[in-house]
Amino acid sequence: MKIAQIAPLYEAVPPKLYGGTERIVAYLSDALSDLGHDVTLFASAEAETRATLVPVRDQAIRLDPEPLKSDLAAHLAMLHEVRRRAHGFDVLHFHVDLIHFPMFEDIADRTVTTLHGRLDLKDLSNAYWRWPKYPLVSISDHQRKPLRFARWLGTVQHGIPASLLPFSPRPEGQYLAFLGRISPEKGPERAIAIAKRVGIPLKLAAKVDAADRNYFANEIRPLLDDPLIEFIGEINDADKGAFLGNAIALLFPIDWPEPFGLVMIEAMACGTPVVAWPCGAVPEVIEDGVTGRIVDTEDAAVAAVAEVARFDRRRIRQVFERRFSAEVMANNYVSLYQQLLHSGNAERVRTA
Amino acid sequence: MKIAQIAPLYEAVPPKLYGGTERIVAYLSDALSDLGHDVTLFASAEAETRATLVPVRDQAIRLDPEPLKSDLAAHLAMLHEVRRRAHGFDVLHFHVDLIHFPMFEDIADRTVTTLHGRLDLKDLSNAYWRWPKYPLVSISDHQRKPLRFARWLGTVQHGIPASLLPFSPRPEGQYLAFLGRISPEKGPERAIAIAKRVGIPLKLAAKVDAADRNYFANEIRPLLDDPLIEFIGEINDADKGAFLGNAIALLFPIDWPEPFGLVMIEAMACGTPVVAWPCGAVPEVIEDGVTGRIVDTEDAAVAAVAEVARFDRRRIRQVFERRFSAEVMANNYVSLYQQLLHSGNAERVRTA
Repeated sequence: MKIAQIAPLYEAVPPKLYGGTERIVAYLSDALSDLGHDVTLFASAEAETRATLVPVRDQAIRLDPEPLKSDLAAHLAMLHEVRRRAHGFDVLHFHVDLIHFPMFEDIADRTVTTLHGRLDLKDLSNAYWRWPKYPLVSISDHQRKPLRFARWLGTVQHGIPASLLPFSPRPEGQYLAFLGRISPEKGPERAIAIAKRVGIPLKLAAKVDAADRNYFANEIRPLLDDPLIEFIGEINDADKGAFLGNAIALLFPIDWPEPFGLVMIEAMACGTPVVAWPCGAVPEVIEDGVTGRIVDTEDAAVAAVAEVARFDRRRIRQVFERRFSAEVMANNYVSLYQQLLHSGNAERVRTA
Repeated sequence: MKIAQIAPLYEAVPPKLYGGTERIVAYLSDALSDLGHDVTLFASAEAETRATLVPVRDQAIRLDPEPLKSDLAAHLAMLHEVRRRAHGFDVLHFHVDLIHFPMFEDIADRTVTTLHGRLDLKDLSNAYWRWPKYPLVSISDHQRKPLRFARWLGTVQHGIPASLLPFSPRPEGQYLAFLGRISPEKGPERAIAIAKRVGIPLKLAAKVDAADRNYFANEIRPLLDDPLIEFIGEINDADKGAFLGNAIALLFPIDWPEPFGLVMIEAMACGTPVVAWPCGAVPEVIEDGVTGRIVDTEDAAVAAVAEVARFDRRRIRQVFERRFSAEVMANNYVSLYQQLLHSGNAERVRTA
């Protein structure tokens, strides 16, 4: 199949540091190529990919030191190039929210749009209501709730390359892990409270956005004085395997409608169980009692930490491989592409 | 003529506080209506206008207390509505940068796009190069330099209603005025230095954006201890007439390619001369020796303050009325609309 993957231009594909969407586009493009498909990736020029790259910007926007830039113009220019080459693809797969909607209406039936963000924003339903033809893919069933009326083709959960993070049969560290952004919705305060109550060290590997600096200084920094609590800042992919693999458990005490929660499957790849709150996609990702525990109080979380420490880490890794490898994700997308093209052909026959 | 005006959705039309583009769209829509045209304004619902309003959002985005919103989706939904009604207009006049380019290609020859911002951003030339058909209007000749190749229909300078700011034949206050944002490019440090050297009080009426809070705290705040210097914060339209009209002169010591510089003509409406640096549009707006002095050193600015204090304020007001009223602006746009429609018809005849 000839497939175009259209990535956002904010981060490199895959990102050098933070960035979920571009990471998934990178894994998906490679995995589809490995399955034998002819994949063309539209992305910024530093992309590392086994697909054919069409570089549409010299570098990703966020880390570009040039202060005067336009993300809107950059994305429109990319989409213009995609449009110019659109006849060459069986399927065009967009990962840029809805910015392409005005440009591909006449070929919407051979596009797929994966929505990577939360969908409960004020202006979205009006816009999605006006462009009803685009086949959409959610990354969890929960994510699509605010836009039930849209044309949902299916849910495809994220996947990561099976070899990316090594399985760790026995955690070398006696600590709990927190990995993500420092922000109230990610629950770092809850994580700290849980660690203190169970008396096990907690390591927080997290970036602090400019928007969250006050929150970090006022709410989190004072909690770091405890010898049990260690803040180690943002970590890169190379360090992630050891950080997650050596943890007794990952704490994921979120307080927002998480559309997917990539870090949960990163932990599972290492064999590390997850203690998570039942927000957003969590109940769809965690198999309660197998790959982690879903809890909604600190009391329950404290009990769950002791429990998950005895879980079979090999079985967690097996669940990861069965459900959350990049290859599984790519196969799920191929099924949707085929379903889309067949229904399109069927319609064409009917109207012929 | 049946004219659509398409405003950005960031601020109210006109803005409650800061906001240049929405202010001009408000003045232009009213002035075109006063000239007898059938004007339809696409804007957020709190717009105050003599045109027919099509409210496309319940309120403007920036002051909407809802934290979860999407400016991209809001603008796309508006443009979808404009597109749905496009057949009803002779001319569609866009003030939303280039976000509409993918949606009106087939009727680009009856659209006008006024560009309100600086055009020397990294991603713009690639995007404008890909949509060459849209007739563009600059707000100064200088502004268009980075995109010389584009289809420029003309330059139309901004105008404000003649009755908005009262003429002040004699300044009641013995002070210099600075009005705008506190940011390095606007030159507040230069303004303070000039005031100290001439020994005349300076009043700074300015907003401080979140992005400029550190600059304000570190560079400007320490300079405010001088009894000559007074910081009075952001002011509204009602206070602007007295603030500018009672000043000896407006200091406009900018250090960036200002696309227009609305405050210069606001000062001129009050009869107040301007001392300005020759950046961006300044030489096109200020008539050196009549409505102000254009200088490029602090020494020259110090001399100019004494000089402009003796300028004929009535003549400054006359220049304002002749060149910078909203009615003049509206007439200039009508000429461009007519030029566009005639050339369009001519082309149609030729290709018939």
